[in-house]
Parts: sequence; structure tokens; C-alpha cells
Amino acid sequence: MTRFVKFIGGFAVAAALVLPMTAQADDKDVIDYRENVMKTLEAQTASLGMIASTQVPPDNLVQHTEAIALMAKAAKKSFEAKVLGGEAKPEVWANNADFTKKMDDFVAKTDILAKSAKTGGVPVVMEQMVDALTCKGCHDVYRNKK
Amino acid sequence: MTRFVKFIGGFAVAAALVLPMTAQADDKDVIDYRENVMKTLEAQTASLGMIASTQVPPDNLVQHTEAIALMAKAAKKSFEAKVLGGEAKPEVWANNADFTKKMDDFVAKTDILAKSAKTGGVPVVMEQMVDALTCKGCHDVYRNKK
Repeated sequence: MTRFVKFIGGFAVAAALVLPMTAQADDKDVIDYRENVMKTLEAQTASLGMIASTQVPPDNLVQHTEAIALMAKAAKKSFEAKVLGGEAKPEVWANNADFTKKMDDFVAKTDILAKSAKTGGVPVVMEQMVDALTCKGCHDVYRNKK
Repeated sequence: MTRFVKFIGGFAVAAALVLPMTAQADDKDVIDYRENVMKTLEAQTASLGMIASTQVPPDNLVQHTEAIALMAKAAKKSFEAKVLGGEAKPEVWANNADFTKKMDDFVAKTDILAKSAKTGGVPVVMEQMVDALTCKGCHDVYRNKK
């Protein structure tokens, strides 16, 4: 029996290593996941805001702008599955062409911002960040804040 | 007068673009900043955990591992200033050689993890992530959870 349990245990581990490729996410999982991505964007833009307002030194300017660019891509991907709920309004999928356009814009501009941080540092990021962080434009239309 | 206000306004903007380089952070700001970095790590490791447990598909595996590697570097940097408070125990600075060693280990391993995600995908990340995410080893010793 022990051996059988060990075998099953081993199989479960092996399966876990393969299954993610084809995993079907429950609705709640999809929503939790989206919220983790958004929480990251919130914490990262807050960090950038603290640099902008000179509350903290800009030591990690590059890291924050890169993390924002990465999570912009993840955010876009995380709304591809039509899973209503959480803070997302149904309009995300009803007006999906506009939503996707806004997300593409966010992805493109944060990508440029991350590159600017590396080449131009603080002054260029300060110049571009308000235009790049298009959060409000999307939230005003597509988010029901809890 | 209007012209003068405009001039002062312009100067304030110009100053804001330069000041971050030499900004002195208040203690509360330093702590808030550290907490934003840690919030990001929490949300990002949660996202990776959801992939590991097959709750969501691994679409953004590379982005999450990269964001973790970036924030590991930012976390290390954010504890360089000796600012007690928040959830950090005084031991962070009392035993700073050990703390720094643990942070260096975290930075190095998450850097490898991010590279593994790109080259080996899910199976390699699943294999390495428990060893790379050394959060608990540090939190147990150096964190007073609120």
C-alpha cells in the first residue's frame, strides 16, 4: 500500500509538472489571478510615484519601470479569457475592441517607459510617465471599484 | 504676478526633475516604499503559485519570474538604509552580514529562475521555485508580521 501511495504521489508530482500547459482555470482563479497582476501594478506605480515626488531616491527606477511593462503584458493576457466578475465590468468584453486598443496602448507606452528609464533615467521617466500610465483611462470605463 | 507664479511653477517642475537624484527620504517613506516592494513580491509569488498548482495557465510565466527577480534586487536595495520600523526587525541591521547574505542568495536564485523560465518553461521553474523563493527563511528571522 505504501508503495502504491508513493507511486500515486510520484504520478501526482509528474502530472503537476505537465498539467499547467493545459490547465483549465476556474472563474474564481482567473479573477484572483487578474487581481494579483493589478495589485502588482498598483504597488509598482505607487513606488514610481514615490520616486517622482522625491519621497525616496530613484535607486530602483529601472526595476520598477520594467516590472510595470511586464505586468502590462500580463494584464492584457489575463483579460483574454471572457470571465466576468471581480472588478471588471461586462463592458470589457462587450466593447472588447476598444478595451484591447487601450491595453495595447498601455503595453506599448510602458515598454517605451522601461527603455527610457535605462537610457534617460529620472528626467525622461518623469516626462513620460503620466502619459504612459494610462490606468485611469481604462479604470474609469471598465472597472467597478469594490 | 501671474508671470512670477508661472516662473515659480516652472522652477518647481524643473526642480522636481532634478531633486530625485539627491532626495532625502523620510523614515515613513522608506518603510512605505519597502512595503510596496514586498507587496509586489507577495502578489507575484502568489501568481506563480497559481501557475504551479495549475489554477491558471502559465501564459505569463516569464513575466512573473522576471518581475520577482527585479523586485528581489529592489528589496535588497530598499533595506540598505538603516531605517527601523514597519515589519522589519532591528536584527536586519544588527545581523546585517547574515541578512545581506540571505538577500544576495535570493537575488542570485531568482535571477536564475527568470532565466530558466525563458529557456526551460514550466517544468524547470517548478523544479527550482521552492529553492529560489527563500522568502520564509528570511521572514522567520527578520520580520515581525503586523
